[in-house]
Parts: sequence; C-alpha cells; structure tokens
Amino acid sequence: MPVTPEQEAEIAELRANPRPTLRAVSEGMEAHLYKINPVLDHGFVRVIDYMGDDAAICQAARVSYGKGTKSVQNDEGLIRYLMRHWHSTPFEMCEIKLHVKLPVFVARQWIRHRTANVNEYSARYSILDREFYIPAPEQLAAQSVINNQGRGETLSAEEAARVLEYLKGDAARCYDHYEEMIGQEGQQGLARELARMNLPANIYTQWYWKVDLHNLFHFLRLRADAHAQYEIRVYAEEICRLVADWVPAAYGAFEDYRMGGATLSSKAIDCVRRMLKGEQVTQETSGMSKGEWREFEGVIG
Amino acid sequence: MPVTPEQEAEIAELRANPRPTLRAVSEGMEAHLYKINPVLDHGFVRVIDYMGDDAAICQAARVSYGKGTKSVQNDEGLIRYLMRHWHSTPFEMCEIKLHVKLPVFVARQWIRHRTANVNEYSARYSILDREFYIPAPEQLAAQSVINNQGRGETLSAEEAARVLEYLKGDAARCYDHYEEMIGQEGQQGLARELARMNLPANIYTQWYWKVDLHNLFHFLRLRADAHAQYEIRVYAEEICRLVADWVPAAYGAFEDYRMGGATLSSKAIDCVRRMLKGEQVTQETSGMSKGEWREFEGVIG
Amino acid sequence: MPVTPEQEAEIAELRANPRPTLRAVSEGMEAHLYKINPVLDHGFVRVIDYMGDDAAICQAARVSYGKGTKSVQNDEGLIRYLMRHWHSTPFEMCEIKLHVKLPVFVARQWIRHRTANVNEYSARYSILDREFYIPAPEQLAAQSVINNQGRGETLSAEEAARVLEYLKGDAARCYDHYEEMIGQEGQQGLARELARMNLPANIYTQWYWKVDLHNLFHFLRLRADAHAQYEIRVYAEEICRLVADWVPAAYGAFEDYRMGGATLSSKAIDCVRRMLKGEQVTQETSGMSKGEWREFEGVIG
Amino acid sequence: MPVTPEQEAEIAELRANPRPTLRAVSEGMEAHLYKINPVLDHGFVRVIDYMGDDAAICQAARVSYGKGTKSVQNDEGLIRYLMRHWHSTPFEMCEIKLHVKLPVFVARQWIRHRTANVNEYSARYSILDREFYIPAPEQLAAQSVINNQGRGETLSAEEAARVLEYLKGDAARCYDHYEEMIGQEGQQGLARELARMNLPANIYTQWYWKVDLHNLFHFLRLRADAHAQYEIRVYAEEICRLVADWVPAAYGAFEDYRMGGATLSSKAIDCVRRMLKGEQVTQETSGMSKGEWREFEGVIG
Repeated sequence: MPVTPEQEAEIAELRANPRPTLRAVSEGMEAHLYKINPVLDHGFVRVIDYMGDDAAICQAARVSYGKGTKSVQNDEGLIRYLMRHWHSTPFEMCEIKLHVKLPVFVARQWIRHRTANVNEYSARYSILDREFYIPAPEQLAAQSVINNQGRGETLSAEEAARVLEYLKGDAARCYDHYEEMIGQEGQQGLARELARMNLPANIYTQWYWKVDLHNLFHFLRLRADAHAQYEIRVYAEEICRLVADWVPAAYGAFEDYRMGGATLSSKAIDCVRRMLKGEQVTQETSGMSKGEWREFEGVIG
Repeated sequence: MPVTPEQEAEIAELRANPRPTLRAVSEGMEAHLYKINPVLDHGFVRVIDYMGDDAAICQAARVSYGKGTKSVQNDEGLIRYLMRHWHSTPFEMCEIKLHVKLPVFVARQWIRHRTANVNEYSARYSILDREFYIPAPEQLAAQSVINNQGRGETLSAEEAARVLEYLKGDAARCYDHYEEMIGQEGQQGLARELARMNLPANIYTQWYWKVDLHNLFHFLRLRADAHAQYEIRVYAEEICRLVADWVPAAYGAFEDYRMGGATLSSKAIDCVRRMLKGEQVTQETSGMSKGEWREFEGVIG
Repeated sequence: MPVTPEQEAEIAELRANPRPTLRAVSEGMEAHLYKINPVLDHGFVRVIDYMGDDAAICQAARVSYGKGTKSVQNDEGLIRYLMRHWHSTPFEMCEIKLHVKLPVFVARQWIRHRTANVNEYSARYSILDREFYIPAPEQLAAQSVINNQGRGETLSAEEAARVLEYLKGDAARCYDHYEEMIGQEGQQGLARELARMNLPANIYTQWYWKVDLHNLFHFLRLRADAHAQYEIRVYAEEICRLVADWVPAAYGAFEDYRMGGATLSSKAIDCVRRMLKGEQVTQETSGMSKGEWREFEGVIG
Repeated sequence: MPVTPEQEAEIAELRANPRPTLRAVSEGMEAHLYKINPVLDHGFVRVIDYMGDDAAICQAARVSYGKGTKSVQNDEGLIRYLMRHWHSTPFEMCEIKLHVKLPVFVARQWIRHRTANVNEYSARYSILDREFYIPAPEQLAAQSVINNQGRGETLSAEEAARVLEYLKGDAARCYDHYEEMIGQEGQQGLARELARMNLPANIYTQWYWKVDLHNLFHFLRLRADAHAQYEIRVYAEEICRLVADWVPAAYGAFEDYRMGGATLSSKAIDCVRRMLKGEQVTQETSGMSKGEWREFEGVIG
C-alpha cells in the first residue's frame, strides 16, 4: 500500500468538500482529484490541481473575451489544427499539478525535463521511508544487444532470483545503517544530509510537479514511448489516462499527431514517393544507413 | 470604454454560472474573475483563471498529502520563512492567467520576461482596432537629467499640447492608411502582416499571459518599482491589487521582503556597522561611488 | 548601407587581431566573425561570438575527457543518430551570439522564442535612427485567400505604388515629429521613453541575440519555413548559411531530418501503408479533413 | 586520483595546440582550460569552453559594433552599475561549459538549477566506475539543532569511525553486486538501466554543464553560501576561483553586491533608521520574529 490510513483520510477529506468556482471546470478531472493512482510497487500519481480545459485552449488561441469557439465541435477542429501546425502556445495555457511518488533513479530521468516546477521531499530535513522499488521478476531483462541502452530478453528464473536477492538484501542493509547513523540511541546522530548518501537509487522519493500541457505532451511523447525505460513509462502511461479525461480533444489530437505519428527525413520522404510510383527501394538504393532504414521499415509497416 | 457591450455580455455570462470544484478556491480571486480592471485610456487587466492559494504554497513546500499546515497562522509563518530565505519553488506552485490589453510599446517591455506563457492577438490574421494610447497631459514629461533613461519635469502646457497634437494626428493618419491598404473597395488589399508595419507603437494589442507566482513577483518587483516607466507600472500596480486578494499571506511577505526591502552591498553593510558604532561616514570614506552613495542614503533615510 | 564608415572601421579592427586560444575553433565561422551580412533594405546579421563545433557536440554526448570521437566520419554518424532520435542536449552545448538589425515588427515575432538571451538597443536611453523598412514592390502581396494569415497574389503596380507612398510618407512624418518632440531647440524635449510611441513598426531596432544550437535549430525550422513571413524568413535563411559553415555535420543532419523532413499523423501513416499495398486512398476514405489531406498530398508528392 | 594517465594525456594534448581566433579571449581562462581542479575525494571541475569576457558584457549592454567601452576602467564602472541595478541580460552574454565529476546526491541538488544545459554520463548505456564519496572524518557532523536542515557538531571519533565503516562497506558490497548483476560470466547480465538502482547516492557521476554568467552567479550565490551543504559548496567555491580569473570585473561586482551583500526587509530598514537616530531597538520592538531578528543581527554585526 503506497499510503497510510491517515493519508487516505486526508485525501477523503479533500474530496468531501466541493466549493463553487467561476473558473473553467473539467468534469473528467474533478473525478480524479487527489486520488491515488498506484504505479510500480509503492509509487503513485495524484492530481492535486489543474487549470483550464479544451475550451480554454481555444479561448487563448483566439484571445477572446468569452469562451473559445461557439461549439465543442469547432473547439475540436481548432485544437487539431493547432496541434498539426505546431502552434504550441495555446496548449501552454492549461496547467496541471501532480503529486508523484517514484524511485530516485526514475526521478533522475524525470527531472531532466526542465520546463516544470518541482518541490521534492527534502532528505536534508526529513527522514526517508523504508520503501524500495523491487522489480517484478518478469521485468528483469538483459542488456539489449540491439539498441545498446535498453532491455533485451527476460532473465532466467534462476538469474532473476539472484538479482532480487541482491536488490532486497542491499536495500535492507543500507537502510538499516541509514537509520543507525541518524538515530543511534544516546548519540546525536549523523546529519540527514550526509546519511542519505548511503541509500540506493531504488528508494522512493516524492514531489509536487507542475507543468503546462504543451510541455507535458513533450514529456509524454518521450516517456510513454516504447523506447523509454519501463519504470518511467508506466508513470507516463498513467498520466496519459488522466490527461485523456481532462482535455479529451487535445489528448486525441496528441495521440494522432504525436504519439501515433512519425517524422520522416527528406530521404525517407523521397523513398516513399519512389515506392508509390512503383519502384522497388532497398536500403542500398535508399541513401539511408542501416539503422535509419530499419526504423523507416517500422513506420511504413 | 475598453470593451463593447457584446464583450460585457460575454463577461457577465461567464460570471453567472458558478460550478462545484474540489480544487483550492481563493474567495478573494473569485470576486475578480473575468472582470475588466481599466488601465490607461483603453487598456485593462482581467483575471481569466488561477491555480492555488496561500495554503497550496505550504502544501507544496511540505509535499503533503492533505492541506499545507494545520492553521492559517502557521501558513503565514511558513510563507514568510520561505520568502525570506529565497525558497522560490513553493511559490511556483501557484499560477495565474490574465487577459491584458496594452499599448505595443508596453508589450515590448513586458515580453522581455521570458518565464511566462503568452498568446497575443495576431495582426497577421486579424485587423487591429483603432485604439491608441494618448497620455494625459500631466504624464508628458521631459527626459530626466539625472538617470538618463526616465522622466524629469512635466512639460509646459504649450509643449504638451503640441505633443498631443502630433500623437493624435499621426496615429489617426497611420490608421486611416492602414485601413485603406488592407481594405480598399474593389481591390484585394495588402496582406495584413505587411499593412501592420504602418501602425505606431502606441496602438493597443492584447494577449493572454500566464505566469507562476514566483515569476510574477519578480515581474512586479521590477515593474511596480518607482523607476519603471509609468505606462507599465500602472499595469503592475493593478496586478498587485489582484494578487493581494488572491494570496494575502504571500503578497504580504512579498511587500515586506521584496517591494519594501533593499539589497545592501558589502560596502554598504560595512558603512552601516561603522555608523552604528558612532562613526561619521561620508561618501569619501565609504568606498562607494557617488551614485552608490546617493542610493545608499535613500535606503537609510 | 546599413552601417557607417566608423562602424566599418570598428569591424575591420576587430578582424585584424587574431589571438591564440585553446578552445574549439571553427574555421568556417572565423571567416564570418563580425562581418555585416545584409538583410532587407537596412538590416543585417553579424556573428559576434560562437562556442563549440561539430566535435564539441560529440564530446558532450560522450561526456569525454578529450575530443569527441576518433574521426570526423564517426562524428558525423553520431550527430545524425542524435538528431534522428531527438537527443537534443548535445546540440545545446554549442552557442552562438549574433548582432541583428531588424524592423520592429520582425523583432516582435522573433522575441517570442524565449530560450535565448537578448540585449536590445534602448529607446528609453538612446534616439533611434531614421531607418525604416520599405518593401520592394514585388514583396507587396494581397492577403492570402487560402491560409488566412499569409500572402497571396502580388499587388498590381498601381496598388503597390499607393502602398509605398503611404509607408514612406507616414514613416517620414512620424519620425519628423519624433525628432521634434524629443529635441525642439530651446525646449527640454519629451522623454524618449514617451516619444518612441509615435514611431511605426517598420522602424529598425537592433539587438544582441545569443542562443544554443538546439534552440537555434528550432527557431530556424519555424522561421526559415515557407509559411513564415517573408521579412523574418530572410533573416532565418541568412543564419542558415552561417550555421552551415559553423557546424557542417549538424547542419546537414538538421536539413535532412528537420527542414526537409515531415511529420505524419497516425492517420497519414495508415494511408501510406494502404497505398503501398496498392489501395487507392482518397480524402473521403483517409479519415483526414480536407486541410490535412491537402498537406498530406504535399508530402507524398 | 580522479583521472587516469590516458585521460591526463588527452588533456595535455588539448592544451598543446593553441589556434588563432578572432573571438574575445580571456587570458585568465585560457590558463585553466581543460585542467583538472580536484574537489572532494574523487571529483573535479574542468573548464571545457567559455564565451566572452568583461568587455563582452559592456559590448552587449551597449549593443555596439566594436568593443564595449573605451577603457577597462569604464568597463568596470559600467559592470558595477549593471550589477547594482539588476540589469541581468548583459551578464547572460557570457557563457561557460564545465566538465564536472560529482557524487550523485550532489548532482541531485545541482540539477535543480534549470537554466543550464546538461549532458550526463549515461548509466543506461555505460558502466559506472567503482568510485564513492567517503567524507573526511572532520566532515562527519550531527544534525543541526538550530536550522533543522544543516550540520551541527562534529561527531566523536568513535561515532565517525562507525559511520565510515558503514559507508565504505555498503558501497563496496552494493558495487560488487552491481558488477555481478551486469556481468556474471556465462550469463547475459541484467540490463544496466536496472542494475544501477542498486548503487548508493555517494557514487560518482559526471556531466558537461553549460550555463550563462548571470545564471551561474545565481547558482554560486546559493551554493557558495555558508548555509549550502558542504559537499556542493566546495564545487561552488572552486568555480568562484575560475570565474574570478575569467571575468575579474564582473566577479568583483558579484562579490560586493551579491555574495557579500544582504537583503533587508522593510521592517529591517525601518530598524536601521531608528537605530541610526539613536533608538535602542530590540527584537520585541522591531516587529520581527525571533528568526528574522537573529538574522538581522548577523547583518548589522
């Protein structure tokens, strides 16, 4: 369980008291507010706040005094147009604030997206909980022999068992020593800012993360992608589900033009044109490298 | 009047329909939502949306599951602590979206603050209205002889009248020609993206501007300052009033530590220490330049 | 002539004194340093400084102690790989500083790219020169009837002549009054920060603009694009020529994967697959809107 | 030793070949280029590249065609003026690129400064070295009882010995298992992106970090401050020494106005004024909280 009963009670209290507002309201998002959406073994994603909805994107695009366009249908058409032509500023007019609990090695990838606001739980000030990410056995895979930085085949049961033993044992021992260092009875205890250095990268941390919709889409395109590391991808996928309920039209356009789309190089476009005219194009006659050609074949099926 | 009756009706409609939300609500800000706050002769500031309140700042600082601290008093103490120690990230957790109508030469200063999201009315796509900023006579001042980039004495009535005649006449003529160029009957009309180049910098534009509270405070500190140009300062001052109603504790801390505060150099601190010990310090013995000393005297009264 | 003889002399002096450095040097860029590259009737682009070269991109990608890879060929392969897979951070390791003279209405579009450093000539402090952009007659075109925000057919000679008369006459009169307002003999003169409001948007301004290569490529992709307004596109095209000499491998990859590339939506990819299997796909059976289909046809030729 | 003989040779080679350039050259910085500046037990800071010098700051502030001002003395005066009045954009016109080797828990603090470009050594692709930060015994201190997030008294020799044993033992064991997981003979080995999660936060990583001078000063003000954690402060202090040689005038102004300066609240200014008039002000009559008063006393000595 990622949260305590006390925390559950705090969440329930926050959901118990609707108040009137004149702001844009997304019904789809109201249903998610504050709730725990579990990810991995101890992690989660919670929506803490949001600003705007599909109509707000159109309202900003038109710099209008009232609502965006006259109808939901027009809104969707405008949103698809904006997405297709890389008009990013109207999407920046929506904002979301999330509370995320995640392993430190995932947090280290995540933070590389700089166009967001972050408040992380401070291990200088507070004591971290004894919670570590231990992968499910089917997630334990070998180094990929194809792309040099991903995963290949799943480990054998025996190897997986050995890995899990290491991960569990080392995490437990490191945490035992962390606790001893900061809190040995009758002693002052080592400063927390120092003791934390003994904790492995699969310990959980948490943060508030706030980002606008345009930059969130950029994050999701990279991190919900099949090449992203599984442990961050599952967070991105969970966020995708939340965003689909928040701004359905914008998310639909994102799926069509970004997630499901592909960028072709000028060489690749040239090949498509030749192929459509009936030419048999091969890697050798394409002008592409082997890697490019393999990726191109993936796009044209 | 900065808005038309149709626009007024759109605004009234937006204010007529409160809806329930589970998000943080700022009563002070709800009272302002969508309303026109006039600035200069045709400009305005309107709050379109906001995210968060004082409690949300504390909630983020603590990365908490429920609300921030246990009481409003504790919230205020924490907020003052955060502001004093330059902990900026919790203030980034609040966000505001404004609709602003402003002269182009003001917009050009404003846009230099890069950490905001902007959607400006497009003069490639749309036709700008015939609205120009014409200063009140008492705002017409000479170039300052002290600071080289501000205003000094007010112009004489005669000079002011001549200036106003130029400003009004040139704006009217330029706009007449703008209209003729884009829309002469029986002719195609010049592309709007070209015709706009004939319009002077006091024509009004408008935009949606979205920014987090930390960066807004930075903007306000510079632009509500006595050295800022009057025409942008009046916008900043209007926004100050709105923010004071939105996040009273944060705004109070901002007033005390930023707007009303001052930064002393190491030389200035040294002078204060010597003066408190009874020494008579002069510019010559201070180690400061004349300009620094004059500013220092302004601080210590 | 965009510069005075005094300025030419200053530039010549800067080019006369090479000094030794241990930093990465790009011969291609050294040849351009400080020189005036004219754009439009009075504008220019000048390279003031640069950091890094193709090898520096690879060096950063590898976080290496010495140079990037072992050979120029390997560098190029790595750079193409990075560009293809949207690894943007190594390109951020190169930086360029430009001095640009440009009309104000172009500057207003340009400044929307926020991830750059800018120092603009101050019209609060200084007096602007009497220089206005007056388009060549063949650039005077009607509002487009297709895309709603660009240019369509060229104006007739008669219309063009009338437009040019307006532009020239209004600019001259506005500037005359600007001069009179700030500098009437025997009078104090209106503050410059106020007088500037009378100047039209085709007056020239200038700035120092510094940006990293990744963000510059983003700027160039949007602004050197055929849909960009002509008056900013000519600046982007000039910069493209400079970048091609600075980082030839990176620029080549940019041309292939970005400028000459195209992004297909999931619907478009589906259509390509069906067409390659021999199906006759039409707009009606494509699932695309008319606008999307027209753009798709443009891609597949 | 933080680097291998091969790496030393690569560095020597880079320093052996000066080339002519027309760009601004900082002699002070040329002397540092590429060299290892050791920090902590295995870390370092190396300057890889730089753009601009003191004159370049003035040149940008004036948007000039040639060099900045006419003399070094004028440059210094202008730079001090710019720093005092928070004119930050001219300082953004200088840029520096560093290669830094640092413990992961330091990197996690460092990366929170978002306005920089970063390329980190990839532990998905590569294998990390067996190098851990082990504090010197005199750095092992207890949690502070005053500020809640810093260090207080140094640990006793006995406690320190126990802590060091934990840190060394756990790091060694975790790394042993990391190696076994990724490379057991006759087995495929766990993917590196997974195996790294077993490594503690005192393992060393490295990155290329590029930042402009304004944002670097902001970083240094926070991280070279006495309240910053020792392990990041020593990096900041090393960078301070490098910057002092690079842009002596800008660094001098930074020391006077930022590092050695202090910001007083409006209440604090009021107290100074009263005290200078001879009033005995106490915490009770100051209007400040106890924490504020204590900090105020620190400023006025």
